[in-house]
Amino acid sequence: MPPIDLDVIRDAAARIAPHAHVTPVLGSASLDRIAGATLFFKAEHLQRVGAFKFRGACNAVFSLDDASAARGVVTQSSGNHGAAIALACRLRGIPATVVVPRHAPQVKLAAIADFGARIVPCEVSQHDRDRVSAQVLAETGGEMIHPFDDPRVIAGQGTAAFELLHQAPALDAIIAPVSGGGLLSGTLIAAKSLNPAIDVFGAEPEGASDAWQSLRQQRRVTDMTPNTICDGLRAHLSERTFGILSRHCDGILLANDDEVRAAMRLIFERMKQVVEPSGAMALAAVLRHRERFAGRRVGIMLSGGNLDLSPLFS
Amino acid sequence: MPPIDLDVIRDAAARIAPHAHVTPVLGSASLDRIAGATLFFKAEHLQRVGAFKFRGACNAVFSLDDASAARGVVTQSSGNHGAAIALACRLRGIPATVVVPRHAPQVKLAAIADFGARIVPCEVSQHDRDRVSAQVLAETGGEMIHPFDDPRVIAGQGTAAFELLHQAPALDAIIAPVSGGGLLSGTLIAAKSLNPAIDVFGAEPEGASDAWQSLRQQRRVTDMTPNTICDGLRAHLSERTFGILSRHCDGILLANDDEVRAAMRLIFERMKQVVEPSGAMALAAVLRHRERFAGRRVGIMLSGGNLDLSPLFS
Repeated sequence: MPPIDLDVIRDAAARIAPHAHVTPVLGSASLDRIAGATLFFKAEHLQRVGAFKFRGACNAVFSLDDASAARGVVTQSSGNHGAAIALACRLRGIPATVVVPRHAPQVKLAAIADFGARIVPCEVSQHDRDRVSAQVLAETGGEMIHPFDDPRVIAGQGTAAFELLHQAPALDAIIAPVSGGGLLSGTLIAAKSLNPAIDVFGAEPEGASDAWQSLRQQRRVTDMTPNTICDGLRAHLSERTFGILSRHCDGILLANDDEVRAAMRLIFERMKQVVEPSGAMALAAVLRHRERFAGRRVGIMLSGGNLDLSPLFS
Repeated sequence: MPPIDLDVIRDAAARIAPHAHVTPVLGSASLDRIAGATLFFKAEHLQRVGAFKFRGACNAVFSLDDASAARGVVTQSSGNHGAAIALACRLRGIPATVVVPRHAPQVKLAAIADFGARIVPCEVSQHDRDRVSAQVLAETGGEMIHPFDDPRVIAGQGTAAFELLHQAPALDAIIAPVSGGGLLSGTLIAAKSLNPAIDVFGAEPEGASDAWQSLRQQRRVTDMTPNTICDGLRAHLSERTFGILSRHCDGILLANDDEVRAAMRLIFERMKQVVEPSGAMALAAVLRHRERFAGRRVGIMLSGGNLDLSPLFS
């Protein structure tokens, strides 16, 4: 496959255009005051399936040739990527199988099932995820679409920053949450291609700081056991995403779960927007490291809005 | 004062334009499927102070002549109107006093105080609210701005429907929640003036159905003790709003608190928007009475987004 560059991301944007939303960019005078910066929130919680993940999944599914597509798609996902693959496959009219660890949030499982995908449970360990996925692939002859370690997925995720920089052209910085690194990789390639002077940071929970450690140690750290409320930010980088981050990323900014919770509450109360913990990660990092962003124009990825709201309605 | 007509509402729109947001109109393919209609949500939870109330308060405060304004404004409010008056007075640089019953939600009191208004507590009864308000008026010589029984306020609230009908011109119907009737009165005058064929309904909780009863009995019912989770919908109509509703309203649609809770949850989960129970009232009514709206283009007032979110963050 060719390297992922701006042309590949532009192609992805055209490929997903009939299916994905161009999400709005939201502002908040009250959060600007709190941050001491001008914030541009890319509203990916308003993307289809409620997360940026639809971009990558849609680009990958619609990149398949007809023969491969007919055999269906397999993926492993604790949530939003699974729902995104399920919807993208439904839109293309092909079968989807999602291998899901047993601890996954109910609200995300329901979305996957609603979109008509087959759900196959597995244990939490990466080893068991891979074992069950391999089994399903052998049975179906289908195509594996990994949640982040896939150039088609990374290019798709890059369309969010590509849009953002057309909607809010003069940004000084963009912050995206980092888990496996798909969104951050796509954001880096899109943003640095469009504007080499822009700063792009990852935002990561203290309790799952493997990307932060990996960049400091200049080697991929994969032995950390994540401990964070950000259920979407528990994966490790792949060789591919580690390589992209090592080349382009201006740094990883950490924040702890209390700071994520506070940022999430600000987004609910001041912006009246529903975001999941991972979706508030980038704002939490900006508020913790506000001296870096004082007076600047900062793009923030609100990456998703799927969470269990039962406590509010019981 | 002249009668409230489209010109008065147009003047109000011009008067508040430097201060108020033109809120967006949101759609949701998933809620359209559930409702069997095409829904246009006027996002007043994204208005300043998080509710349509800012429109009426702002219009009233900026209508005052300089001499009256200098003596300050007094109002009584269990919440959003109080915050709206507080912000409008801060913007005009004049003092505000808000008389607040003791049971008012903490989140709404905090907003009033944050905007720099003086808070004077009173008992829950209308009698005590009036007593304390009269006291404050006598002390300050200020101007009373009632939450709904005021032509300036009604005209201001009418600017929401005025905007909506320019943003979504070919609506068949508009539904607005009804409490004291300020928003519904303004909506009726704006909508019926712009398009006499449009249907305009009020939406009211079963547990506070005084407007529904008033229109059926053709006399103002004021002796009902409200029992509903919709803390913004517990007031009774005034003679003025009862008169406007009697002349123009196509009916009041009821829904119960469970239906309001379900509608609110749909707005959170499918639209990723934070609305208070009163803000979900109109959708609850449309879903309960969906046969009336099948296949039609329906405007829905998302009237506000201020609620206690502690259960989600504890």
